[in-house]
Amino acid sequence: MEPIKFIDGGVCAPSGFKASGVHAGVKANSPVEKLDLALVMADKPCNAAAVFTRNVVKAAPVRLSQKRVADGRLQAIILNSGNANACNSTEDETAMKMSEALSGKSAVHADLIGVASTGVIGQKLNIAAIEAAVPNLIDALGARSSDAADAIMTTDTLRKEFAAGRVIGGKTVRIGGIAKGSGMIHPNMGTLLSVITTDCAISSEMLDKALHSAVRESFNRISVDGDTSTNDSCFILASGEAGNSEITEPGTDYDAFDDMLCTLCAKLAIAMASDGEGAKHLITCIVSSAANEDKAEAIAKSVISSSLFKSAIFGADANWGRVLCAMGYSGENFDPNRVDVTFRSAAGEIAVCKDGRGLPFDEPLAKAILSEHDIEVQIELNEETEPGAFPWCMCWGCDLTYDYVKINGDYRT
Amino acid sequence: MEPIKFIDGGVCAPSGFKASGVHAGVKANSPVEKLDLALVMADKPCNAAAVFTRNVVKAAPVRLSQKRVADGRLQAIILNSGNANACNSTEDETAMKMSEALSGKSAVHADLIGVASTGVIGQKLNIAAIEAAVPNLIDALGARSSDAADAIMTTDTLRKEFAAGRVIGGKTVRIGGIAKGSGMIHPNMGTLLSVITTDCAISSEMLDKALHSAVRESFNRISVDGDTSTNDSCFILASGEAGNSEITEPGTDYDAFDDMLCTLCAKLAIAMASDGEGAKHLITCIVSSAANEDKAEAIAKSVISSSLFKSAIFGADANWGRVLCAMGYSGENFDPNRVDVTFRSAAGEIAVCKDGRGLPFDEPLAKAILSEHDIEVQIELNEETEPGAFPWCMCWGCDLTYDYVKINGDYRT
Repeated sequence: MEPIKFIDGGVCAPSGFKASGVHAGVKANSPVEKLDLALVMADKPCNAAAVFTRNVVKAAPVRLSQKRVADGRLQAIILNSGNANACNSTEDETAMKMSEALSGKSAVHADLIGVASTGVIGQKLNIAAIEAAVPNLIDALGARSSDAADAIMTTDTLRKEFAAGRVIGGKTVRIGGIAKGSGMIHPNMGTLLSVITTDCAISSEMLDKALHSAVRESFNRISVDGDTSTNDSCFILASGEAGNSEITEPGTDYDAFDDMLCTLCAKLAIAMASDGEGAKHLITCIVSSAANEDKAEAIAKSVISSSLFKSAIFGADANWGRVLCAMGYSGENFDPNRVDVTFRSAAGEIAVCKDGRGLPFDEPLAKAILSEHDIEVQIELNEETEPGAFPWCMCWGCDLTYDYVKINGDYRT
Repeated sequence: MEPIKFIDGGVCAPSGFKASGVHAGVKANSPVEKLDLALVMADKPCNAAAVFTRNVVKAAPVRLSQKRVADGRLQAIILNSGNANACNSTEDETAMKMSEALSGKSAVHADLIGVASTGVIGQKLNIAAIEAAVPNLIDALGARSSDAADAIMTTDTLRKEFAAGRVIGGKTVRIGGIAKGSGMIHPNMGTLLSVITTDCAISSEMLDKALHSAVRESFNRISVDGDTSTNDSCFILASGEAGNSEITEPGTDYDAFDDMLCTLCAKLAIAMASDGEGAKHLITCIVSSAANEDKAEAIAKSVISSSLFKSAIFGADANWGRVLCAMGYSGENFDPNRVDVTFRSAAGEIAVCKDGRGLPFDEPLAKAILSEHDIEVQIELNEETEPGAFPWCMCWGCDLTYDYVKINGDYRT
């Protein structure tokens, strides 16, 4: 495969897309500099796919977008922050009105518009403010991926926006994405809104397949707090303007696209875990020499989700016993007496557990390793891998801090 | 049934039991006033039953006690705090030595001794300190339930000790229990050690049945932090000295005993949730008008386990949207449009959600209600109950606070 090259431009890096973000005033008294309404729009209708929350309680924009994307075609996604438009008496009507406001002021048919909302659950969305802002939102359309990325942020402290390109079938194909975290993040999925664009020519069936595979290996492998939100939505739109011959079946071209999409989604997912609410550390948990990937994944997810382990990392305390404890309640079976655990960061590496038993280790070095921002926990199961199976999985999380509690103790008001 | 009467005396309230707690110095530099070694002993061998952690990683004392209780007979339980005796190279030998130290200095056969440990995972237990303290532990035996309860506390701030009595088959039967929390608490079970005594005459089969039913409705319905520990153990010993005719089958007498045991375990469990690490609030979640009890239980557990909801309660924020969100990822199916939610405490009651939609409510009153220590969240599913099913479940948890993070950021050292 040709190499992947990271580029600027976010969702506007691929040909055929524009974006914008404006202040609509979704939340009363929100400062004018707070962008809260975003638009990602293609010049023409696109092949499209999406993945949504598995929560039984689904917000109206999720239910509407599920219907809209069912035929594999979309042209624009309109998104707001500040209110989830969930569990209120006007949510369905309001989600519909958001798309109609855009459709009424643009050439895009309402059936080709996806809608996404994020914010507090259970309060009415100020649709009048959004309707009033839509003309500005359309006027602002341009290479403004960053404005769109900023407008969907809630408690995020950093913008999540990446783009990449690689040669596929002799043509340069680009993928760009924006996303927001940063609480209520858990497989599957997170409180995540994400819009991904590509100029790859690809059928909506293959796009759907690639998106599901990429989400599985990225957004579904992060956890901030164990809460799966009502509003998770991840859209992908393909303009086809790269000029490659359309990908309609598995093969080299599909693999190259799938690989690049996974890479981009992983970049967005890692950025979300790293910017988890109140997080001071990014925790990467790698489980290897497992019987299969599903087992490795379940164990890695259990470790990054443990409140006790997350609190220990906040305190830079090499409490590896909590790693074994979290592995043990993952629901997977394994032999504790074969488990090895290593902590690693830019400050060094330290083996803390061998064959399920603690090793003597240098406490000041362990403290130094765990004081870095990016921390890796490597777990070897030392199992025989099943024939043809993949023995390995990587998941991402963050520490549990005072600030997480502070942010979420007073979120609604 | 005759009424249940709460009485003093803890595990020493039933006839035929003595208890003690001493300082052994399990942790280096622990102050002498910190009791860390406990003993509950019967005058004669007892019918016995126990429930243990479902974690794949089981500490040596759990594995040893599982074997010892398999024949339904025990006479004594020796317990230490300060070290979990898990995941270290000498754990099996050490657990065995703990019981041999007791057996060697008393008339109790080692096969009749249960062992339990709680504390840090992965470090060797100082068995020499325990062996040296066993003579003192035996000398101190008496009506010292409170010393035993104190000696098993780790981060607990309050002693957990209750006893109750009721007339069964014309005789007064007593049950007493001690337990420790307070982190790594989650169904199933918690980081809980608990020893329960009774003078009821009851076969070990019926005792096992009653203990499993009581644990299901008490210790398995609390969550502090979603972490299931490696050391959970709950023992019950029956001396038979109450003089009732032995309970060997289901019936009125069994029901009266089972009911009293459930009540006692619920008291201990609620005390554990209320004293959860860093907790400022006890949260009781009641799910009613469900199709069946299992569904009600799964939904109630999901709500009390939600980090976001727990943080909102810490902030006295009536963010009921997080209740619906947590219900939605419980794994159970239900109609969100029929859900009603009410918050209640000594300060009053407020309906916040009707038919899945927010109700306008008095914010200062909501704040006042959620500022009380004991808070109830009542959820009505408004489902048709299955014929013969129980439509209702109550679970207990606590809020997530700065102190939880603080306690667990620096637990090991």
